[in-house]
Amino acid sequence: MIINGQQFQTIWVDVNNQEKVKIIDQQKLPFEFQLKTLTTFADAFNAIKDMTVRGAPLIGVTAAFGIYLAICEFKGEDLKDYLQKKANEIKTARPTAVNLAFAVDEMTRALINIKNIDEAKRIALQKAEKLKNLEIDYCYSIGDFGLKLIEEISKKKNGEKVNILTHCNAGWLACIDWGTATAPIYKAHQKGIKLHVWVDETRPRNQGSKLTAFELQQMGVPHTVIPDNTGGHLMQHKMVDLVIVGSDRTTRNGDVCNKIGTYLKALAAFDNDVPFYVALPSSSIDFSISDGLKEIPIEQRNGDEVKFIEGKGGKTQVVPDGSPVANYGFDVTPARLVSGLITERGICNATPESILQLFPEKE
Amino acid sequence: MIINGQQFQTIWVDVNNQEKVKIIDQQKLPFEFQLKTLTTFADAFNAIKDMTVRGAPLIGVTAAFGIYLAICEFKGEDLKDYLQKKANEIKTARPTAVNLAFAVDEMTRALINIKNIDEAKRIALQKAEKLKNLEIDYCYSIGDFGLKLIEEISKKKNGEKVNILTHCNAGWLACIDWGTATAPIYKAHQKGIKLHVWVDETRPRNQGSKLTAFELQQMGVPHTVIPDNTGGHLMQHKMVDLVIVGSDRTTRNGDVCNKIGTYLKALAAFDNDVPFYVALPSSSIDFSISDGLKEIPIEQRNGDEVKFIEGKGGKTQVVPDGSPVANYGFDVTPARLVSGLITERGICNATPESILQLFPEKE
Repeated sequence: MIINGQQFQTIWVDVNNQEKVKIIDQQKLPFEFQLKTLTTFADAFNAIKDMTVRGAPLIGVTAAFGIYLAICEFKGEDLKDYLQKKANEIKTARPTAVNLAFAVDEMTRALINIKNIDEAKRIALQKAEKLKNLEIDYCYSIGDFGLKLIEEISKKKNGEKVNILTHCNAGWLACIDWGTATAPIYKAHQKGIKLHVWVDETRPRNQGSKLTAFELQQMGVPHTVIPDNTGGHLMQHKMVDLVIVGSDRTTRNGDVCNKIGTYLKALAAFDNDVPFYVALPSSSIDFSISDGLKEIPIEQRNGDEVKFIEGKGGKTQVVPDGSPVANYGFDVTPARLVSGLITERGICNATPESILQLFPEKE
Repeated sequence: MIINGQQFQTIWVDVNNQEKVKIIDQQKLPFEFQLKTLTTFADAFNAIKDMTVRGAPLIGVTAAFGIYLAICEFKGEDLKDYLQKKANEIKTARPTAVNLAFAVDEMTRALINIKNIDEAKRIALQKAEKLKNLEIDYCYSIGDFGLKLIEEISKKKNGEKVNILTHCNAGWLACIDWGTATAPIYKAHQKGIKLHVWVDETRPRNQGSKLTAFELQQMGVPHTVIPDNTGGHLMQHKMVDLVIVGSDRTTRNGDVCNKIGTYLKALAAFDNDVPFYVALPSSSIDFSISDGLKEIPIEQRNGDEVKFIEGKGGKTQVVPDGSPVANYGFDVTPARLVSGLITERGICNATPESILQLFPEKE
């Protein structure tokens, strides 16, 4: 997508040196636009851990390139052993998104029986690029399927502005290109459909106000940033036609784990008959689990993210010294509150049957 | 209540000069503790408008003292005319809290037929003090009735810690003393009941993390500050036993207008069978209206409150330049989501019948 008029993806191999991987430093956005270079496995691990890159699909692809960089660094004897160690290690960088495990397992599967280091390098790079392109394709298709939803609402409203609410950043910055929740928005905007996006600021890290607002602004999409407390009020007053969010992990029965606060918006949407859709590639579906509330580990992050807020103008403290804080990263929206899942293969209900109809190979 | 070991109320007449009114500058808390002196009607108006004082009961009492200060300043001919002008003026300082209109109307009623300026001054001061003491008494009684709720839960949990979630600041800083939502908490804490309070930070102005956390800390009550997005997750995981919030205006049928985001917590409480109580003095009940969603004007505040966050360390910008913001101050929680109202006369259901049983004179 576009930053300052230039085409970008969130991660790419350096054209001048194949053993370097470039990323956008998302900690600095929107106030500074800086690139960062990953040259080692540790660089990739840290970029995921400290959220220089974030968003389930991008975490997965960065981990894939991390495995590639690990192989570039390899100096030992037993490649298989080393590979498995690194694979296990990088899976611990963030616990909630299933894409991380998915991408790492794909890499391991492709590499596990290869003994020649040059061949391993070549295949690792190929596979990481393939996973990257897969995520782009997924988002592209999600955009096409989601576009139809927006078109329908636009038609019902006789072309009047469609108001869409989103939480956190499930935009192209969370992916490689297009985004998940934003892909239908970008496609609708490109098609000339009148729309406006309510952007939840998404405390504590403000990925909404910092990343989603930035993305939408760069792409020329009308939007308004709101505190996370606001969405319910807007829905009560018919100021939201559609909610679209992303997901860090969705279970086989359609429970959706996403950024903390998503569940509250789903409740409000349900209470006000506002359609609540989750846009996600199948790499975010964890077919090995059913009950999201019981089975998905919820990351607890450093309390300083709550205690301090960073922005243009520096860091400021909003909690008195000596008051404890808690910082849960995600929550789970039960399937019963989800109107539908927008996947790369189409839209399905948040039920095990409907999901398996789209992905029969996961039966 | 207590600040730095010393007893305070939120507003009082200067002991050395009866025509000066002292307040705590709540814009500076919790990082600076400063008093401010109101010497004119305009001072009182601005203190309400710019939220140097805030919270429905305190807004009402400050307005009452504002009318008193207006009379102290009076130099003209027609006191009645002047009084009505000032009364109408101060009612516009904040539109949502009904206590403002309530207190101003009480002042006007007491003063409207008085022609002698010295008598008017004396009566205005007396009446403002009376309204102030009334609010203290109300909060005290709310504390006693709410205490029973907490005691019951504590008993059911065999004395295990009771977890209470609150939104915004309906503490003693929002009132004169004790607070509304916090009064039961302080009484339970004083009685030795084990409890812990989840404090919603309450963006955009962070009255939760800045004022409620400060209050609880000063009073020695165990608490944890959380982003506004967190409460639903905590309730899903049985980490909340009770929600108590305040109200800026409640209708005769029990619709509760309170700080933006309250509705989202009420939905989560309902969805997880967590009791959701609203603590409010009858001065916050607007018996003239029934439908909160249709009849209560929702204040829209300056967008800079969303765009910038102030704390210890200064002001920082969290929304990119050029992205619009919206800042709705309140929302309405429909009566159907409210387990009960804790008033100075006891606890009632959020139904017109039950409310009128406690306040039959409002029939």
